[in-house]
Amino acid sequence: MKLATLNNGRPDGHLVIVSSDLTRCVSAGRIAPTLQAALDDWSVHAPALTALAAQLDAGAIAGQPFDPAAALAPLPRAYQWIDGSGYLSHLERVRSLKGSKDAELQSGRPLLYQGGSDSLSAPTAPIRITDPDLALDFEAEVAVIIGAVPMGATKAQASAAIRLVTVCNDVSLRRLVVDDLQNGFGFFHAKPSTSFAPIVVTPEGLGTSWRDNRLHLPVRVEVNGTLFGQPNAGTDMHFDFADLIVEAARTRSLASGTILGGGTVSNRHDESLPIKKDGIGFACIAEARTVEKLKYGRARTPFLKPSDTVRIGAMADGKSVFGDIFQKVVLA
Amino acid sequence: MKLATLNNGRPDGHLVIVSSDLTRCVSAGRIAPTLQAALDDWSVHAPALTALAAQLDAGAIAGQPFDPAAALAPLPRAYQWIDGSGYLSHLERVRSLKGSKDAELQSGRPLLYQGGSDSLSAPTAPIRITDPDLALDFEAEVAVIIGAVPMGATKAQASAAIRLVTVCNDVSLRRLVVDDLQNGFGFFHAKPSTSFAPIVVTPEGLGTSWRDNRLHLPVRVEVNGTLFGQPNAGTDMHFDFADLIVEAARTRSLASGTILGGGTVSNRHDESLPIKKDGIGFACIAEARTVEKLKYGRARTPFLKPSDTVRIGAMADGKSVFGDIFQKVVLA
Repeated sequence: MKLATLNNGRPDGHLVIVSSDLTRCVSAGRIAPTLQAALDDWSVHAPALTALAAQLDAGAIAGQPFDPAAALAPLPRAYQWIDGSGYLSHLERVRSLKGSKDAELQSGRPLLYQGGSDSLSAPTAPIRITDPDLALDFEAEVAVIIGAVPMGATKAQASAAIRLVTVCNDVSLRRLVVDDLQNGFGFFHAKPSTSFAPIVVTPEGLGTSWRDNRLHLPVRVEVNGTLFGQPNAGTDMHFDFADLIVEAARTRSLASGTILGGGTVSNRHDESLPIKKDGIGFACIAEARTVEKLKYGRARTPFLKPSDTVRIGAMADGKSVFGDIFQKVVLA
Repeated sequence: MKLATLNNGRPDGHLVIVSSDLTRCVSAGRIAPTLQAALDDWSVHAPALTALAAQLDAGAIAGQPFDPAAALAPLPRAYQWIDGSGYLSHLERVRSLKGSKDAELQSGRPLLYQGGSDSLSAPTAPIRITDPDLALDFEAEVAVIIGAVPMGATKAQASAAIRLVTVCNDVSLRRLVVDDLQNGFGFFHAKPSTSFAPIVVTPEGLGTSWRDNRLHLPVRVEVNGTLFGQPNAGTDMHFDFADLIVEAARTRSLASGTILGGGTVSNRHDESLPIKKDGIGFACIAEARTVEKLKYGRARTPFLKPSDTVRIGAMADGKSVFGDIFQKVVLA
């Protein structure tokens, strides 16, 4: 089943079911007006939503054309956004840039940070910055939306709580990351609104692409129309999503509608940019710069500047599974 | 105007208006079913809520008895909970315990951290812990709930966005604070659910107690029925609430319903526990322990253990302005 949230002028938007081929949609309003409402009573609403999705796919309901440009983030505001660090090669590569510590590299337990969730950006919303010199970067990630998880949850409980999957762009102001890390209070100023792809899909809806609590698909990133990276999200993910949920629930419960990011998708390799057509590349600029520093003695790839664009999507059979995030940088 | 959220079995509870003397309440459901709904359209709903509050106070509406034990947190789940550090003496006193850095003590800009807001505890909810050896502490704070604030807001805009005021208990697991600070990703495991007093009051409803973006009232804390502290929240607050909002909005906008804590209330003095009837004391255990270490060479006051209780309330004329937080520690 595929769901999206359309802009209706209200803060939470309007829930729709999207056809398997992403061309059509139908309002889910008579079942649940918003995605959060659906998640609050998932066991009640999911069967009805699934039945409606089947009718839409069978053509029993005509629906209306699905316009990704009218989509908000699936949860335009959420009660929780936690970002994890599933990919150790990301941490290793950004380590020198971020002024972070050895403790970050421990592979025994994943690092997590509490992100701001009060305004999550639409897939085509511009990235607004007030200062062009803050080393603006994107981070392409896989994210899951979960049901309620009790404190001290087991891995099985964590896995069973995964309701929906999508991709997101964890926008980062690298120049401020160092300050945020040094005061020890976590990322605050360095992480403006995270943006999300228009569509969320149930694990079942992803077929064999979703297994072992990982999305086994390449996440394709283009900067200004040029391929920047296409690392596979199922490869080199040291901590899977159930591991991340277990860690997040160590000292507290997690409410339904919590969004959890898997960290910047990152595969181990030593290629540098520009990558070949079948190369792997990177899902953030900071990693590319680190590899360049090691190889050439200096970073070549610039951070994003006003009017640059970034496109992010998870690809299967040449198609963007969750629809694309496509954002332009705008100086506010 | 005074508002509260009563438990109706749903995640967001039911909004009520509470009489000035806190004895009666009336449903606000025909205006806005939940506090978040009221905040989403505050300019529309606030006048109607104010009119209903006036009728309740005048006796034109009988209402029903207000039972604080039936209250949830005013926002039982919120889109954002940011905790600031308005009181420098708190930072100075906890510094040695937390393994934190000199940068923390800079008085030029307040520190902030992004807290979990997916489940905020009711005023009488137990504090559930799974491990009795994590150095459980309370932190009595003043908190404000704000309307939408644009990125780069001025101090005047920030001040005007303050909709409601209350007190909260920022529960802390001190043993985990060190780990969280050292990995640099911020407080995650060290901060389970924050609890809130049952009642929120508009700045106007606080009269002269609210001025200069500060609450000028003592916040009284009792542990196991014994006075622990009563520092005045308006004294020694180096960064006021408008300063904290301006800092929070430096690189991003803040959505309506964002809750912002002022940090552990802390006054400069060198008293140690037990305090006299008119003493000042502390709004968290960590500060008391630091003063004891300096005075006696070792900390005497233990952290909270199962079956301990903590009571927190802001006092005016011998009355608890927002109602009390009263929590018992329970080993889950």
